[in-house]
Amino acid sequence: MSGIAKTPQPPYYAVLFTSQRTEVDKGYVKMAEKMVELASQQEGFLGLESACENEKEITISYWESLNAIKEWKENSAHKIAQERGKSDWYNKFALRVCKVERDNFFEM
Amino acid sequence: MSGIAKTPQPPYYAVLFTSQRTEVDKGYVKMAEKMVELASQQEGFLGLESACENEKEITISYWESLNAIKEWKENSAHKIAQERGKSDWYNKFALRVCKVERDNFFEM
Repeated sequence: MSGIAKTPQPPYYAVLFTSQRTEVDKGYVKMAEKMVELASQQEGFLGLESACENEKEITISYWESLNAIKEWKENSAHKIAQERGKSDWYNKFALRVCKVERDNFFEM
Repeated sequence: MSGIAKTPQPPYYAVLFTSQRTEVDKGYVKMAEKMVELASQQEGFLGLESACENEKEITISYWESLNAIKEWKENSAHKIAQERGKSDWYNKFALRVCKVERDNFFEM
């Protein structure tokens, strides 16, 4: 997945998904790739940043509005992935919805 | 570093630090550990989540208020680390300051 998302001027929204994975990998990578592809086609999607380290995973997705986040949550393929996540792939996770108030980008 | 931060009821604040590292490691791990220790002693600090995958790094820190974030930014040891980050450890990074409006925790 990508590096640093090129987001527009704030305000915009971020969904912070932080998780502890199980040792079950069955179908996970394929599903994760499909979800990124689907999310990026969704109206209001602004970008994604993700890093996995051993069992830890952090994925931040950026959105134009709370409504875009709601629609992504309700996406039917995404709902199936959410259920598989709970049954197979995650021991625990947190979801946080935030309003990005300011940002700074540095390139050295 | 820790897994999923135990944050209080929203609203609270999050600083999203997403970066692309250089190949320079000199002093990085030690400094990163010291910064986590210092931040956690700072008034208003609520928790931290971090994952590194190859050159990608995502660190999310949680704070009670914008003022607590400002004080951490101005911490003198942290300022030295910020300069070392720009000169040695990072090719590029983004910093985003967010207000967490809602959250959900799941344990399977």
